Amino acid sequence: MKENHEELDQELNDTQLDPETEEVEVSEVEEEANELANLQAEFDEMEDKFLRARAEIANMANRGKNEREQLQKYRSQDLAKKLLPSIDNLERALATEVSDEQGASLKKGVEMVLESLKHALKEEGIEKIPAKGEPFDPTLHQAVQTVPATDELPADTIVEVLQEGYKLHDRVLRPTMVIVAQ
Amino acid sequence: MKENHEELDQELNDTQLDPETEEVEVSEVEEEANELANLQAEFDEMEDKFLRARAEIANMANRGKNEREQLQKYRSQDLAKKLLPSIDNLERALATEVSDEQGASLKKGVEMVLESLKHALKEEGIEKIPAKGEPFDPTLHQAVQTVPATDELPADTIVEVLQEGYKLHDRVLRPTMVIVAQ
Repeated sequence: MKENHEELDQELNDTQLDPETEEVEVSEVEEEANELANLQAEFDEMEDKFLRARAEIANMANRGKNEREQLQKYRSQDLAKKLLPSIDNLERALATEVSDEQGASLKKGVEMVLESLKHALKEEGIEKIPAKGEPFDPTLHQAVQTVPATDELPADTIVEVLQEGYKLHDRVLRPTMVIVAQ
Repeated sequence: MKENHEELDQELNDTQLDPETEEVEVSEVEEEANELANLQAEFDEMEDKFLRARAEIANMANRGKNEREQLQKYRSQDLAKKLLPSIDNLERALATEVSDEQGASLKKGVEMVLESLKHALKEEGIEKIPAKGEPFDPTLHQAVQTVPATDELPADTIVEVLQEGYKLHDRVLRPTMVIVAQ
């Protein structure tokens, strides 16, 4: 566009040097008007491109913020999932009966570890899904077995937990495996 | 700018209707040339703004990608740090002597849990920092105590580990607390 501009200055000088050439001037006026119209169209187009780019920048900033928040919120998901079998095993180990003091001391130690593990998970937003005695919820629980409903255990109540389930904030890491009254 | 453009069309029509007014035409040519120069300047400015916005979009995309990669790489950092005391305690619990079969069975269970915990951590890029017998490295180890160096234990060698240290990829989660020969 610079070239056009310089050319125009030249044309303007020519015009001023020779005020007699009336016909040429009219055509020059026309030409310049065309040039102006073209340049205006180019400007409008460039302005449109700029406005779109600015909108895209705002969108990207928003999307980036949301993505970071999601990554942050669920960052512990993978490690937490991998820890669940260890917690199951610790709970299972604690079901072992011990008869002497050394065994009791070991058991006490393991209990404390389990507590501190659960505390660490809770701090990261990971908690056991409530199950026993709760109404069955297919988004949280997985029914592995059913038993006939009774007066004390109405239909769709969870009767027993076979494997504990956990969630991270609102996301289920592993559903609870349960026996449901039906 | 649209208004200017329409105005210009009008001026052009006036000009064509009255080819006699030579003086006016010259001034009109001048005026239009000015308008063209102004519009060109505005176009250049707009183009510059657009090019800057486009560069910013490319920068944001790059930054966003790097940020996501970093968040992903170190996502397990917080939970892993909170798990370290549990691992310390499990290792300590395993130091307990047991004398009967129940105690041995409990201990076996705890050993398996510790293995599966360490496996889970390793899969997330978390590993014990090598220490005993290694040369002391202040970026990985913390010297809590020193002992005189000997022929077998030259200066700056780690003699004993008081508390294990861990790193997540290249990042130290907790330095190893050590006794160093000096």
